[in-house]
Amino acid sequence: MKKLIYFIGIVFSLVPLAACANDNVQINENQKVKMILDLDTGIDDALALAYALADPKIDLIGVVASYGNVTMEESVSNTLELLDMLDRKDVPVFRGADRAIGENTPFEVMPISRFIHGDNGIGDIQIAASPRVADKQDGVDFMIESAKKYGKDLIIVAVGPMTNLNEAVQREPNFKNMVGNLVIMGGALIVDGNVNNLAEANIFQDPVSANELFRSGAPVTMVGLDVTQRTLLTKKDTKVWRDLGTTSGKAYADMTDYYIDAYLVNAPELGGCALHDPLAVAVAVHPDLVKVLPLHMRVGTSDEDWGRTIGINGKMNDPDPNVSVCVDVEVDKFVNSFMDLLTNLFKAN
Amino acid sequence: MKKLIYFIGIVFSLVPLAACANDNVQINENQKVKMILDLDTGIDDALALAYALADPKIDLIGVVASYGNVTMEESVSNTLELLDMLDRKDVPVFRGADRAIGENTPFEVMPISRFIHGDNGIGDIQIAASPRVADKQDGVDFMIESAKKYGKDLIIVAVGPMTNLNEAVQREPNFKNMVGNLVIMGGALIVDGNVNNLAEANIFQDPVSANELFRSGAPVTMVGLDVTQRTLLTKKDTKVWRDLGTTSGKAYADMTDYYIDAYLVNAPELGGCALHDPLAVAVAVHPDLVKVLPLHMRVGTSDEDWGRTIGINGKMNDPDPNVSVCVDVEVDKFVNSFMDLLTNLFKAN
Repeated sequence: MKKLIYFIGIVFSLVPLAACANDNVQINENQKVKMILDLDTGIDDALALAYALADPKIDLIGVVASYGNVTMEESVSNTLELLDMLDRKDVPVFRGADRAIGENTPFEVMPISRFIHGDNGIGDIQIAASPRVADKQDGVDFMIESAKKYGKDLIIVAVGPMTNLNEAVQREPNFKNMVGNLVIMGGALIVDGNVNNLAEANIFQDPVSANELFRSGAPVTMVGLDVTQRTLLTKKDTKVWRDLGTTSGKAYADMTDYYIDAYLVNAPELGGCALHDPLAVAVAVHPDLVKVLPLHMRVGTSDEDWGRTIGINGKMNDPDPNVSVCVDVEVDKFVNSFMDLLTNLFKAN
Repeated sequence: MKKLIYFIGIVFSLVPLAACANDNVQINENQKVKMILDLDTGIDDALALAYALADPKIDLIGVVASYGNVTMEESVSNTLELLDMLDRKDVPVFRGADRAIGENTPFEVMPISRFIHGDNGIGDIQIAASPRVADKQDGVDFMIESAKKYGKDLIIVAVGPMTNLNEAVQREPNFKNMVGNLVIMGGALIVDGNVNNLAEANIFQDPVSANELFRSGAPVTMVGLDVTQRTLLTKKDTKVWRDLGTTSGKAYADMTDYYIDAYLVNAPELGGCALHDPLAVAVAVHPDLVKVLPLHMRVGTSDEDWGRTIGINGKMNDPDPNVSVCVDVEVDKFVNSFMDLLTNLFKAN
């Protein structure tokens, strides 16, 4: 990736901008992008899944399940049920990691995650069980096989911990050069974290994997709290879905209201629920939605900075920074497009 | 200040940029800027002082002394001596705060500051004592009086703790609306601090004042480690000054070599000494040197985040962010210009 070189004055003028050119990302405006989602299917993951099905630029070829908001197995079943409800039984779901790298004890969902996403991960709404089961292929192998098959046409969007994505980078040394782009929802660079002042929840779950991923040189677009907390949904929006009178409209309205209620308690200053995961999916195919800083990044893995995402002091003049950190977003453009796409999708199901 | 609205893709294209327009900053290209420097005169302060005297865009109307790299009284005497050596006995020096806001015990210079700047603050070089003394007027009153006199034509550049600058904002409620801009060297947003992972030294000395300043709504340009650690000087550069055969050329070469040697021990990964303070002065009159993010910022004042500079989560969508954080810099353009200007200045003295 070439370094973003543009300089902005504080005086009155229009300054020309040489945008960041990511040699690994080639988005043909007339062609669908092959996409794999890596989901720990809680509520905003469910919204991200719906977005990926609704955006005409995306060809969703599979979902890899992760632990995080829920257990990996809960992510599998939630994802299958949502796909079935949205009439997309053709999309396979794969098992991914069920815990952080090097972790011996089974993953336990944090109480705060249950509070935000409900006991079942999707706001405690009931939807029809799926007759389907997870694909037999390992999720990380599916990522690698897809990169070999589709090359630069493939974008993987991971909105849970970075365990699967990093495992793919480590398992197949050429994976990072083959794949089009790796877009993550995670981290916080210019604002506080949401687990504590320093750490965002996805990165906090497995900072070791995130650090290896950032330092691998793989092309990563970091869609963190810096931008996701600016894109908000309210009950005025979910009412539109409920009023459709469809199964999916009601289900998504109910689960999102659960999420909004949790935000009202946890982060009342935001005035809505944050569209973390859907924004990452949208940025993957509409990079013009965001402003990015290309940086060499690291993730804290010590007790003092566990899960902190930060630029590396000694590498600020180094060429080819591999992480594009989103630092600003066109809020209205994204939220309006998100609402249009999902409302259309729910109308039909 | 209007919000910077521009969005950069990660695809190949040139994207037009609506630059950040700071209504408080009006830099007429044909007119000198009235400038006050707030210095805790260590070595890079001395370089900043020389830069302010050398740049034809700057009319240095006074220096306010602060504690930090040295005591406030040492800052007064170092500044007077340097001004005299550079044949600028006309520039008055004022006493500022000698300790952080609310601090009862006298300020003590940290051992690390003595290591970096020498026991006398200017690399233990000996230059002629000044027959002059500090002006009788209080430094903060001088700032306020100058803002009333020059209005938007005045820029104050503070490269030590924010104690004086914040005191001016608090003492005269209209100060922040009168002054052209407040440029600070301090803070770290997208990289680690230099006192610890979170805090930069100037902010660390008085985070309470820095926090009040950031939250006051005053127009602030933050020139932090995010950019200053990219602009480096080496002994190849200082040799140019020494070879001039002048008093000031030798003095500045010797003191800067002391600073470079300290950097070789403390931050060998940088490959030179950082031009922290001079960059802040340059950015004040050449804002096109940097790229900025306009943000609502806070400074940590708790034990866990003492001195951390970070955006405020709940205010990311709020209008009129008052702090412009520099996040990228045209390194070669600045360093070359810095060398040209200072070499010319030292040639004559």
